[in-house]
Amino acid sequence: MSDVYVVGTDMIKFGRFPERTVPSLGAEVALMALDDCGLTMQDVQALYCGNLGEAGSGVGQRILQLIGQTGIPVVNCANACATGATAFREGYVAVKANMYDVVLCVGVEQMGRGLLGGGGAAGVETEGLIGSATMPAVFAHVGMEHARKYGTTFEQFAKVSVKNHHHSTFNPKAMYQIETPLEVVMSSEMISYPNTKLMCSVNVDGAAAAIIASESAAKRLGLMKRAVRIRASALTSDPYSPRNLVMPDFNGATQLAAKTAYEQAGLGPHDVQLVELHDCFATAEIVHYENLGLCGAGEGGRLIDEGATTLGGRIPVNMSGGLLSKGHPIGATGIANLYEVTTQLRGEAGKRQVEGARIGLTHVVGMGSSCAVHLLEKV
Amino acid sequence: MSDVYVVGTDMIKFGRFPERTVPSLGAEVALMALDDCGLTMQDVQALYCGNLGEAGSGVGQRILQLIGQTGIPVVNCANACATGATAFREGYVAVKANMYDVVLCVGVEQMGRGLLGGGGAAGVETEGLIGSATMPAVFAHVGMEHARKYGTTFEQFAKVSVKNHHHSTFNPKAMYQIETPLEVVMSSEMISYPNTKLMCSVNVDGAAAAIIASESAAKRLGLMKRAVRIRASALTSDPYSPRNLVMPDFNGATQLAAKTAYEQAGLGPHDVQLVELHDCFATAEIVHYENLGLCGAGEGGRLIDEGATTLGGRIPVNMSGGLLSKGHPIGATGIANLYEVTTQLRGEAGKRQVEGARIGLTHVVGMGSSCAVHLLEKV
Repeated sequence: MSDVYVVGTDMIKFGRFPERTVPSLGAEVALMALDDCGLTMQDVQALYCGNLGEAGSGVGQRILQLIGQTGIPVVNCANACATGATAFREGYVAVKANMYDVVLCVGVEQMGRGLLGGGGAAGVETEGLIGSATMPAVFAHVGMEHARKYGTTFEQFAKVSVKNHHHSTFNPKAMYQIETPLEVVMSSEMISYPNTKLMCSVNVDGAAAAIIASESAAKRLGLMKRAVRIRASALTSDPYSPRNLVMPDFNGATQLAAKTAYEQAGLGPHDVQLVELHDCFATAEIVHYENLGLCGAGEGGRLIDEGATTLGGRIPVNMSGGLLSKGHPIGATGIANLYEVTTQLRGEAGKRQVEGARIGLTHVVGMGSSCAVHLLEKV
Repeated sequence: MSDVYVVGTDMIKFGRFPERTVPSLGAEVALMALDDCGLTMQDVQALYCGNLGEAGSGVGQRILQLIGQTGIPVVNCANACATGATAFREGYVAVKANMYDVVLCVGVEQMGRGLLGGGGAAGVETEGLIGSATMPAVFAHVGMEHARKYGTTFEQFAKVSVKNHHHSTFNPKAMYQIETPLEVVMSSEMISYPNTKLMCSVNVDGAAAAIIASESAAKRLGLMKRAVRIRASALTSDPYSPRNLVMPDFNGATQLAAKTAYEQAGLGPHDVQLVELHDCFATAEIVHYENLGLCGAGEGGRLIDEGATTLGGRIPVNMSGGLLSKGHPIGATGIANLYEVTTQLRGEAGKRQVEGARIGLTHVVGMGSSCAVHLLEKV
């Protein structure tokens, strides 16, 4: 079976656009991604659309009404925080199955405001089971458990936010481009210990798109020069554990997805030069270092202390600014991560470029439960 | 690329279950489909779930919490009236891409009551554009246009309902098993001329499931004897036409999907021995005869007069009772159609069996816009 590539991609600058509609944001970014590789809607054979907030309303079709109602197949996906990544994955699978040569994947979201803007993403039963444990509380618990087992400190968790805000100063498409020194992060409003307000992801509106092509189409259309190969696509839900009965197991889901992706690609964590992972809270980034195999169990705190995950370090993480500073428009997040890694592997990331990057990993995980890990490779 | 099969399938008896939840209906039918072919959740490598009403809430994952949280990938799809068929199609494509050997597809819906229980299925922009043209009004217009162009009569439209209610008397899983004579159909409450109440689909709760397997898995698991081959899977959205600006073009979407499916399979309408099509209103069935190529343009009225689409006729349509009598739980409808055709091709349809059927066609089309056509073949 021949390889499958990302040949075009873009994202809008994340922000707050209450005057816009979900389809208008999706349409805008779709045209941007087409423009990125010089294609038009006439070249697109299918559309895969990820959106959570208006999931039942035919967002993909509404996008087509705005930019080209060509009669192509549309698939609307919703999968909690993995919504965009799932749409991307369905597009990838369809090209892999030789159903299509060129597909467009769009992730888009308009978020409610405030810490619980994504309310409902965790699913009715889950939210019922965890009772008052809203997402900030769940990820506070995650941090405290890590602290108890491994001695991880408030300062170490806070450093994640300092790093990601620093990275985002080089990313004009991030919501914020503001340095947040350690003392600012640590003294910002406490949301749920140990996560302060600056250690929580930013609820923003956003859209990102990717165009996926078969090898033959990428060659025929002259798009191989900036193409990025999709080496692995793994999707999981929460595995069973007694813990699942009361708490979502995004650790287990992430470990399973990472293992699956590495096996698909015949690669390991040491082959990866940059990672965009799901830092919905600062505490989440530390545990996902370990879940993705970037370091051993309990070593997440040391990894951030050493600067290994900062631009210029051994394994830069969240060069885009991450969910903490770029922002987290749920349905768009997964494809925005893929945009960042594709841009890096193309060598087009400007001041935030990870030099010599050949393999990049993207990760999103949602309570609800869904986790997606993709591995991309420079051609 | 080797063939892909439906190896297990079932549906619950459609009805009204206000005391149940969407995941509980989905879980029930998933276990029924597994039981149909003697598999367990341990055999299932991925779940594709179609639901419209709770599309953003992780219905697939909530089903897994009830019947086996094994960590498998879950994809939730929503595509108006093609929601269930889209979930089925995504599962089919994944097996075709060699991502998995055995996948489970579930379609499930709890409907609101009344004629507009599926409100929102048409998408915000569409509903805005058509103003007061709710679905009953749209399909009344469809009938009146057909009458104007071809002289189709109220009685001919009404005969569709008589036929489908007759068929459903042989289907214990249909909502109704009641003969409705022509005079009863014609004199029932007028909803939007020429569709009376008995010529509108029944808003019911329902769930249907299908298990799809690769050829190697079907053989390894000893399931070839009752397997049904998937010969074509076509999905479309509304093609562009000036008319699209004010009305959904489900005729164009259906014609395109049928053409695509016939081409994929290398077959034509004359190769098909039974059809489950989207009779959301009696008028719709007549136009879809023509859209699917079962007869020429304008010949739909004659086809129903001749009894060609009744059990025992040349090309039986909606042997299950159709949406008019079996019921139309949106997210479940597409897979329920595939259940009916699979059951017929297996020769297990009892009193409603279409003798000698080798090729069957399923069709769903939603304003929104999405149309799916599948062709199945007896092994």
